[in-house]
Amino acid sequence: MSVHKHKIAILGYGNIGKGLALACSQNSDIELVGIFTRRKPQDIIADFPVFHASEIIKFKNKIDVVALCGGSAKDLPEQIIEIAKDFNTIDSYDNHANIPEYFEKVNTINLKHKTLSLISVGWDPGLFSLARLLGLTIIPEGKDYTFWGEGVSQGHSDAIRQIEGVKLAVQHTIPKQNIIDKIKKGDNSDFSATERHERLCFVVADNDAIKKDIESQIKNMPNYFAGYKTTVNFITEEEFLQNHRNMPHGGSVIRTGESANGNKQILEFSLNLESNPEFTSAVLLAYARAVSKLAQEKVIGCKTIFDIPPIYLTSETRADIIKNLL
Amino acid sequence: MSVHKHKIAILGYGNIGKGLALACSQNSDIELVGIFTRRKPQDIIADFPVFHASEIIKFKNKIDVVALCGGSAKDLPEQIIEIAKDFNTIDSYDNHANIPEYFEKVNTINLKHKTLSLISVGWDPGLFSLARLLGLTIIPEGKDYTFWGEGVSQGHSDAIRQIEGVKLAVQHTIPKQNIIDKIKKGDNSDFSATERHERLCFVVADNDAIKKDIESQIKNMPNYFAGYKTTVNFITEEEFLQNHRNMPHGGSVIRTGESANGNKQILEFSLNLESNPEFTSAVLLAYARAVSKLAQEKVIGCKTIFDIPPIYLTSETRADIIKNLL
Repeated sequence: MSVHKHKIAILGYGNIGKGLALACSQNSDIELVGIFTRRKPQDIIADFPVFHASEIIKFKNKIDVVALCGGSAKDLPEQIIEIAKDFNTIDSYDNHANIPEYFEKVNTINLKHKTLSLISVGWDPGLFSLARLLGLTIIPEGKDYTFWGEGVSQGHSDAIRQIEGVKLAVQHTIPKQNIIDKIKKGDNSDFSATERHERLCFVVADNDAIKKDIESQIKNMPNYFAGYKTTVNFITEEEFLQNHRNMPHGGSVIRTGESANGNKQILEFSLNLESNPEFTSAVLLAYARAVSKLAQEKVIGCKTIFDIPPIYLTSETRADIIKNLL
Repeated sequence: MSVHKHKIAILGYGNIGKGLALACSQNSDIELVGIFTRRKPQDIIADFPVFHASEIIKFKNKIDVVALCGGSAKDLPEQIIEIAKDFNTIDSYDNHANIPEYFEKVNTINLKHKTLSLISVGWDPGLFSLARLLGLTIIPEGKDYTFWGEGVSQGHSDAIRQIEGVKLAVQHTIPKQNIIDKIKKGDNSDFSATERHERLCFVVADNDAIKKDIESQIKNMPNYFAGYKTTVNFITEEEFLQNHRNMPHGGSVIRTGESANGNKQILEFSLNLESNPEFTSAVLLAYARAVSKLAQEKVIGCKTIFDIPPIYLTSETRADIIKNLL
C-alpha cells in the first residue's frame, strides 16, 4: 500500500468538478486539497474547502495535480496556459479537431516550466481512443466504428433550446441496433454517423400552436439534425422534470476485421452509464493518480492516454495486480 | 513512419506460432527472421526460413524479440530460462496461478543478462487483464465478471478424449446469457464459474453401446464438468471433421458498480473470434513491437501488459495517432 496521498485540486465546479469531488470519496489514497472556482466561494455548498480560483497560486508545491474541469470551448484553452506553468494538470479537453494544436501548446508550456500535463482524458476522447488503438494494432486489416449513446447530447439539447417557443429540451443520441448487428456479423461497410445513429428529442413547448413549427425547425437544423432520423416528442414540464434531468450516456467502439487467414475477429469496448459526468470524473481521477506517480518520477511534458502505462492507474502494488488481475 | 524493421523470431510452430507467422504478413514494419523448431526443420512447410531450435544462439544480436510459442505447462518455463539470457522475449504464458512465480524467475534472468521479457500476453491473460484493471480503477466500488466463450476449450476437449471409447471430441464453453443480462442490469451478486457458464460437448464414439457410459463419465468428471450444466451430443466422424475443426472463441469482461452518488456504471470489453490462436498471435505481434521499441530505449527486466504504454503498440507516429484516434 502506498503511504503517499495524492493531493488533487479541482478547478471549476460544474458537472465534472462535482463528479470528481464525489469520486475522491471512493479512493482512499486521494486527498482533495480544495475546489477552486471563479464564482464566490461562499456561494458553493460542498463538503470540501472552496477557494477563489485566483488563490490557487498560493498552493504551489502543495498540490500534485490540478484537475481542470471547465468547458473545452473557452475555459480549458485559457486556464491551462496559466495553470500548467506552476502545476501538473489533467483535463478532459474534448474538441477532437483541435487536440493536436492544444497538445503542442500545452507541451511547450510543460517543457519550459518542467511540469506534466495529461490532456483529453475521459471516455471519448479517452477510453474509446484506447480501444481504437488496440483495435487498429491487433486487427490491422479491419475497420472501427464508434457508437455514442443511448445518451443525452448536451450540444444537441442546447441547440434545440435556442429555438423560439422551446421551454425545456433534451436530446438522446441512439445508436441503430440493426447497424450494430450488421457490423458484429462482420459487415465492413462504411456507415456514416447519420446512418449509425438516430436522434430522439423531448421538448416542452410554450404552447400547442407552435409545436409543428418547432418540430420542423429541429428536423431541418443543419449539422445537428438534418440527414438524421429524428423523432420529436412533446411532453409536459412536469414529465420533463420528473424523467429527463439525469445525464445517462454510453456507447461502444467496435473493431471488426480479418486475420491473414481470413478469419473474422471482433473486438468491442462498451460503456453504459447512468451518469456521464460522474464516469468522466472517475476516469479523470484514476488518471490523475497516474499523473501524480509519473510526476514523482520527474516525468515532464504533455501526455495523452496513449502514453500512460496502465499500472500507474492503481494504488495497489504491482505484485498484487499481477496476482489478482493478470 | 519508422524505418527500423522489428526483427521477430518464432520459437515453436504450433497453433500460436503459425498464427504469428501469418500475422507478420499484415504488419509491414515486422521482419520474420525465422521459425525455430525442435522438430526436423525440413519437415515444416512454411514460407519463411525454418531452423532447428538449437541454432537460435547463432542469431544473437540479429533478433529484436523472440516469441516463445510453446505450451505453458512445460515448454515455456523450460525454454525461457535459456532464451532470456541472450534475447528479449515475449510469450503468452497462461497458467494464471503460477504467473507470480514465473514473473520472478524471468525477471531475475532479465536483470542479470540485461534483457527484456514481456510475459503472459494474449487475451486472457492479456487484454482481459487490462480491462479488469481499467474496471477496478475507474469503478472502484463494483465487481467484475469474466465470461469465456462461446468457444472451444482445449483442456476440456482433451479431458473428454481421455475417456475410453471416445474417438474425437470437442467442448464448447458457453456463457449463460441470462446471467450476463442480470449483471448488465446491475445485479452485483456472486456468480460462480459454474453459474456463469455451461458446457456443450460434441463427441464421436467408437460404437453406440458405450454412448450412455461416456455421457455419464463426462458429466460427472470432477473439476472439469461436475457441477456444470453439461450437454453431450454424439455426432458422426464425418460431421465432426466438417463442422468442428475450427477454433472459435471469445468472451467478455464486465465491470459493474456505482458512483459515489449511486449511479450505475457498466464497462464491458468483449471479443468474438473465429480463430482463437490467430487472435492471440495478433496480440503477441502488437506487443512484440512494443518490446522491440522499449528494448531500443534500453529498458530491461520482466514486464506485463500493465507496464506497456499503449503508444508503443503502433508503428505510426505519435502525432498521427493523436490526430486520428484520440
